[in-house]
Amino acid sequence: MNYTFADRIATLSPSAIREILKFTSDPSVVSLAAGNPAPEAFPTDVIADISARIFRERPIDALQYSITEGYPALRNRLKAYMTYKHHSFSDERDELIVTSGAQQVMELVVKVLCNPNDVILCEAPSFIGSLNSFRSLGAKLVGVPMEADGMDTDALETALKANPNAKFIYTIPNFQNPTGITMSMEKRRRVYALAKQYGVLILEDNPYGDLRYGGEALPNIKSLDKDGLVIYAGTFSKVLSPGIRVGYAVGPKAVIAKMTVAKQGEDVHTAIWSQMLCDEFMGTVDFEEHLHDLQGLYREKAALMCRLLDEHLVPCGITYHPIEGGLFLWCDLPEGVDMNAFCTRAVQEYKVAVVPGNAFSVNDEPCRSFRVNFSTPTDEAMTRGVERLGVFAREFLK
Amino acid sequence: MNYTFADRIATLSPSAIREILKFTSDPSVVSLAAGNPAPEAFPTDVIADISARIFRERPIDALQYSITEGYPALRNRLKAYMTYKHHSFSDERDELIVTSGAQQVMELVVKVLCNPNDVILCEAPSFIGSLNSFRSLGAKLVGVPMEADGMDTDALETALKANPNAKFIYTIPNFQNPTGITMSMEKRRRVYALAKQYGVLILEDNPYGDLRYGGEALPNIKSLDKDGLVIYAGTFSKVLSPGIRVGYAVGPKAVIAKMTVAKQGEDVHTAIWSQMLCDEFMGTVDFEEHLHDLQGLYREKAALMCRLLDEHLVPCGITYHPIEGGLFLWCDLPEGVDMNAFCTRAVQEYKVAVVPGNAFSVNDEPCRSFRVNFSTPTDEAMTRGVERLGVFAREFLK
Repeated sequence: MNYTFADRIATLSPSAIREILKFTSDPSVVSLAAGNPAPEAFPTDVIADISARIFRERPIDALQYSITEGYPALRNRLKAYMTYKHHSFSDERDELIVTSGAQQVMELVVKVLCNPNDVILCEAPSFIGSLNSFRSLGAKLVGVPMEADGMDTDALETALKANPNAKFIYTIPNFQNPTGITMSMEKRRRVYALAKQYGVLILEDNPYGDLRYGGEALPNIKSLDKDGLVIYAGTFSKVLSPGIRVGYAVGPKAVIAKMTVAKQGEDVHTAIWSQMLCDEFMGTVDFEEHLHDLQGLYREKAALMCRLLDEHLVPCGITYHPIEGGLFLWCDLPEGVDMNAFCTRAVQEYKVAVVPGNAFSVNDEPCRSFRVNFSTPTDEAMTRGVERLGVFAREFLK
Repeated sequence: MNYTFADRIATLSPSAIREILKFTSDPSVVSLAAGNPAPEAFPTDVIADISARIFRERPIDALQYSITEGYPALRNRLKAYMTYKHHSFSDERDELIVTSGAQQVMELVVKVLCNPNDVILCEAPSFIGSLNSFRSLGAKLVGVPMEADGMDTDALETALKANPNAKFIYTIPNFQNPTGITMSMEKRRRVYALAKQYGVLILEDNPYGDLRYGGEALPNIKSLDKDGLVIYAGTFSKVLSPGIRVGYAVGPKAVIAKMTVAKQGEDVHTAIWSQMLCDEFMGTVDFEEHLHDLQGLYREKAALMCRLLDEHLVPCGITYHPIEGGLFLWCDLPEGVDMNAFCTRAVQEYKVAVVPGNAFSVNDEPCRSFRVNFSTPTDEAMTRGVERLGVFAREFLK
C-alpha cells in the first residue's frame, strides 16, 4: 500500500528539537535542550494526598465521562482566579474552557478561526509546538521580528496591511519561548490597538507568566480587552505538572463555544482526575506561596546558568539576552558562524545538547542563536554541560 | 467584534444528543440517552490502590512531560495484548500510539489522511462523535446503509466506484453505535477485500468488542490485515474508565508516524497518570476475569431492558434489534410516525429521554428509530423510564 497523506500534514517537518532529543537518550549527553519543569518543583506529597482524597470521596466523579467545557468546580475557580488576579475575565463577554494542555488551545483556535491559507501573524522566532499546530491545519504563518521589548509593532502593522486575510496575532508576551523576551506595556497596548484597528484577534499564550523572578509583573493583554478580541491561554504545566495535561482558554463566548464543539470531536473532555487535582490543589495550598517557592527555585537556577554562560561562553563572543523569568536563555553566536554545525557538533562530539534556533523560525528565516534550558538539568549537569560547550566554543570560534 | 469562523466548523451542527442531554439535568427526567458505563462497573478500590502505588514509587514519572507515542510500558503491554488476544498486531508492519480516548484516533486519522472534500465511507447511521470529528476537518461523508449483519457491502462497492477520492471506510463492527448490529465474518472479509481492491484504508473502531455477552466473538478486521490497510481503534473507556481518556490506535507504521506528529500539535501526549493506571491495572488484575464480570453486569442490564421493551413498547408496534453486546438498543417506530416529535414529547411531557435516531444520520437520511441505553440508569430508573415511554407510546401511537 502506498499511503498518501493530507496536504496539511505534508507541510510539517520533523521537529528539530525531537531530532536533538534523540541524542539525549544517550546517558553521556548533558541535555540543555528540554523544557521540563525541575523534578524538585513537583509537590508530590500534596498531590498524592489529594489523589487519595479524590478516590476516597468522589471516585465515580473521577472516572466517569464529564462535560467538554471542563470540570465545573475548576472552571469556576479559574474564572475567579483570572478575575481577581489578572483582571482578565469578564462575566459579560468571556467564557472559559479547560483543555488538554495549552497546546490544545493553539490547535482549537486555529481550527475554529482559520481556513487553509488564512494568515496567522507570529512572533519570529516563536514556540515550535504552536507553529506546528497552526501549520497542521493549513494556516499560513507570517513572521513579525522580535525586538528587545517584544514584537516589532511597526512590522506588525505592515504585515496587517499586507495580509487582509490575517485572522489572529499569536504572542507569548512573558519570557517568550525561545527568546526569553517580555513585551513592554507600551507594546501590549499597541498590539491590542492594532488588532482592533485591523479587525483581527489576539491569541495570548502565557505559560510562563507566573514564573517571574525579577522586575515588575505587567498586565496581560487580555486585561485590556474591552472588545472581545483576546483569547488567553493558561496552563498548569509549569506551575503544577505538565504530565497531567491541563490548560485553559479564556475568550469571547462565541469563540469558546466553537472551540467546545471542536474539542468534543478531539477528545470529548480533558482527563477528569487531572482537572479535579488542579481544582483541589488550588483550594488546598496557598497557591501564591507555592508560586513564590517556584520562583525562588528557578531564580537560583537561572542565576547559575547566567554565571556559567558569563564564565564559559561570553569570553568566546557568544552573548545572551537578559531575562526576568521563564525557563530559557537565548544565546547568539557571532556573525558568520554556522549555527547548525555548532549545535550538531556540540551534541555529537561534546555530548551537550542545545536547541538550534532555527527550530523556532516561522518561515526559515536565518538564525544564529540557540536555546538553553536551566529548569530541567541538575545544577551539576548544568555546570558540566556549559563547561563542555565552553571547551567546544573556544575551539569552534577561534 | 463580528467573528467569522472557519468553513470546517460551519458544517458542524449542534449535537442532538447534547440538546436532549440538557433536559436530563432536570432531576425528574429519566435519561436513557447517555452512553456512560454503569457506576458499579468501576473497580474503584483497585484504582485507588494503584494510584497510591504510583505516587509512592514513581511520582515524578506520573507528573513530568512524556513522549507523544505513549507511556512505553503501556504501549508494549497493548502490543502484546493485541497480538496474543486479537491477532491484530504485526511487529513488521504495525505501530501503536496511545491517544486521549478513541475519539482522538478518529480525529487524527482524518487529519492525516483527508484533504477537505475527500470522502469517508461511513455506516449509516453511525456514531455522531466520529461523524462530527470527520466533518470538523472538512471531509465529505458518504453513507452506506446498515443491514442486520453489518453494512450493505454491495452499496459499499457502488460507493467506492462512485467516489474515487474515498480515503477510508469507517466501521464499528461489534455492537455498533447506535444500531447494536454486529458485522458478520463474511462481511468483514468482503469489506477488507473491497478496501484492498479500491486502494482505500479501513478505520475499525472497536469500543464495545469486549462487552460481548451472547453469541460467538468474531475476529477483528485488523486480524485479516496482510496489506497494511487497517487502522484499529481501541479504548479503556468502556472496560476501565472513560474519565481517564485513554484510547489507542494500531495501524501501519507510516500512518501512525503521521498521527504522532499531528498528536504532538494537539495535546503533546495523553495524561501520563491515566496511562500508568491502565498499564498497572492490566498488570495487577486478571483482565479477562474483569471483562467477564463486566459482561455479566451488562448482560443482566440488557436483559432487563429487553423485558421492559417487550412489555411496554412492543405491544404498541415499536420493535427493536436483537443484540449480543454493547450498551445500546435501537428501536424502530411504526412507519409514518414523526420520530422527532416522539422523542421531543417523551422528554418534555413524559420526562424520559431517548436519543432521536437522526442524530446519527450521515447525510440527513430519514430515520424513524431512536436509541436507548441500559448501562447508565439504575434498574429502577430503567424500569420507570420504559414504563413512562410505554404510557406515552400508547397515547401517541393509538
